[in-house]
Amino acid sequence: MEAVSLVNAVGRLAAEPVVASWPVPHFRRSTMDGFAVVARVTAGANETLPALLGLARQDAQGCLAVLTGAPIPPPYDAVVMLEYAEQLQGDTVMVMRPVAVGENVMDVGEDVEEGMTLVSAGKYLSPSDIAVLATQGVTQVKVKSFKVGVVSTGDEVVSPEQVPQAGQIRDCNSPYLTALFAGRGLTPVYLGVVRDDEAVLAEVLARGLSECDALVLSGGSSAGALDFTTNAILRLSRAEILVHGLAVKPGKPTVLATAGGKLVVGLPGHPLSCAIIAHKVAWPLLCQAAGFSDPEVWESTAVLSRAVPSVPGRRDFIPVKLERGVATPLLAKSAAIQVLSSAHGLLTLPEECEGLNAGAQAAVEMWR
Amino acid sequence: MEAVSLVNAVGRLAAEPVVASWPVPHFRRSTMDGFAVVARVTAGANETLPALLGLARQDAQGCLAVLTGAPIPPPYDAVVMLEYAEQLQGDTVMVMRPVAVGENVMDVGEDVEEGMTLVSAGKYLSPSDIAVLATQGVTQVKVKSFKVGVVSTGDEVVSPEQVPQAGQIRDCNSPYLTALFAGRGLTPVYLGVVRDDEAVLAEVLARGLSECDALVLSGGSSAGALDFTTNAILRLSRAEILVHGLAVKPGKPTVLATAGGKLVVGLPGHPLSCAIIAHKVAWPLLCQAAGFSDPEVWESTAVLSRAVPSVPGRRDFIPVKLERGVATPLLAKSAAIQVLSSAHGLLTLPEECEGLNAGAQAAVEMWR
Repeated sequence: MEAVSLVNAVGRLAAEPVVASWPVPHFRRSTMDGFAVVARVTAGANETLPALLGLARQDAQGCLAVLTGAPIPPPYDAVVMLEYAEQLQGDTVMVMRPVAVGENVMDVGEDVEEGMTLVSAGKYLSPSDIAVLATQGVTQVKVKSFKVGVVSTGDEVVSPEQVPQAGQIRDCNSPYLTALFAGRGLTPVYLGVVRDDEAVLAEVLARGLSECDALVLSGGSSAGALDFTTNAILRLSRAEILVHGLAVKPGKPTVLATAGGKLVVGLPGHPLSCAIIAHKVAWPLLCQAAGFSDPEVWESTAVLSRAVPSVPGRRDFIPVKLERGVATPLLAKSAAIQVLSSAHGLLTLPEECEGLNAGAQAAVEMWR
Repeated sequence: MEAVSLVNAVGRLAAEPVVASWPVPHFRRSTMDGFAVVARVTAGANETLPALLGLARQDAQGCLAVLTGAPIPPPYDAVVMLEYAEQLQGDTVMVMRPVAVGENVMDVGEDVEEGMTLVSAGKYLSPSDIAVLATQGVTQVKVKSFKVGVVSTGDEVVSPEQVPQAGQIRDCNSPYLTALFAGRGLTPVYLGVVRDDEAVLAEVLARGLSECDALVLSGGSSAGALDFTTNAILRLSRAEILVHGLAVKPGKPTVLATAGGKLVVGLPGHPLSCAIIAHKVAWPLLCQAAGFSDPEVWESTAVLSRAVPSVPGRRDFIPVKLERGVATPLLAKSAAIQVLSSAHGLLTLPEECEGLNAGAQAAVEMWR
């Protein structure tokens, strides 16, 4: 948990509920320009038989010229809009329409009632939340700092700032994961690139676990990498492998585990697989672990520009480009990454689906 | 323009295009565990008549055991998956299926071609863009710092940290706008709360214009406030009012102007109106002014839980709560704000619409 200034809390997760200590508005306000009146004396008023009220009086037969936002003092309980009233010479106002009690008036606490919960713990704070907190005079907000350790593994992987030799590739998984988590209100902690050595990896993971609330590693890309990651995790204290491989494409070599009561996710090493599984699998689990109350999934319906095949018994995730309601599947090898940068959405084909034809309607989830 | 570290560039706007200086992969790689082969020698291979290849040879009759991601040296041009090959005792490998040239191989530049534009100027940088830039060894990214001056006006408006007296309200518009713009990659500059004094406001706006690229002010809430804002803007150098009032609800008292070639938007003072018009009107204009190339609008189709009325000739914006495809209109006075914090989407009723019935299908735009 950390305290940040009100405006800097946008995009973060509230660490604790915030309850309204102050009603909004805290005085009865007019929502229109016009005349504050006692509603019942306008009953039956019309252009032929207007109600005549006195500006100088402060009783039921009186009225008060008010601008939008102005306080409505007693005994007034409604506002007649300017266009339905006319001030005669002197202090008399003609009201040509009846108003109901409360009409064109905002009552004390009508927007924010004192004692109501404004944000719950774990809410992702939107600009609207920031506005609501401002009405309460909140200047500092306690936000969660849920730390996610990010590790890349693989003998062939080098840091982005290094020049890779033949056989080596730059790590793009950790930059991806770090940017994803930071952009969604979590606190990523980059733990580096670790070579394929079980003992070394286990040591890095143990160190990461001691300072972080969860760990996400992206594995090497070969078939043996899954076991490698699994074995390193099993060296941790109180480690348990929950899932070892998923029936999805891409993303089969995924490991879900806990160690010392904390979530550990082993993602595939292939960049496309890593990114998609981070989004579809790691993210919801991290939300749960972080106590993030309301992860929204935005879906849109689109028409497929071409057929997409699928093998039954396996869930398929396919990045798509969206243009005017038409979704074009972006087919790429799972070792690719550039394709995701131009994707707008992610299409999911469920296990029982044998593919979709061109022209089929499909739900596409927002991809960012 | 400013330079930020790669991972901190997420959620910012690229200041200039980034072109690939490095192909990805930069060597021919295997995408599977298996044997690198010369494709043509596997033609016709099957379980009865397998192709027999030599591990020790480095010619067309040879092969090489490779793990996923490993380099494929010449003369090899394809990879046979492990499950379709069998290593016999000695150096001989039986291949039981033919492979095509390039099969299970990722060619040089297949993911990222050297010279291709990876991000265009003005692109909102996603985690995927960060990943793609990492493949290029990019460690610093030039991002736009498009400064938007934010001003609140109104004699009745006090800063959030002040305790409002009767008749006064805390400013929640500037915190809203500041959070909105910061969360979307612009650089808000808070210019304060200005009382209803044309000369003072004009002075604050002039100062704001000298340091910012655009100005957004939220006006007082009364009918006269629109003229007040307009007059203050007209005191600026080279000022032109483009639009004075919109046929929308909420948000009628909106001013669109330019001054000294820069965009100036006067938003309504009522918090709900201010937030919705900031989203629907100010944001697209700011994107254009900032050279933001790709503002995405996410829409979902939902069924209305109850009827919403509309007056023809006016566009209506209605915040809605979404639950399992059902949109519940959140009706609130435009002076309210709390309702927006629980909204998921925004429903737009176009000018010609006379309202929608309960059960009607409607497109709902993502609200954040």
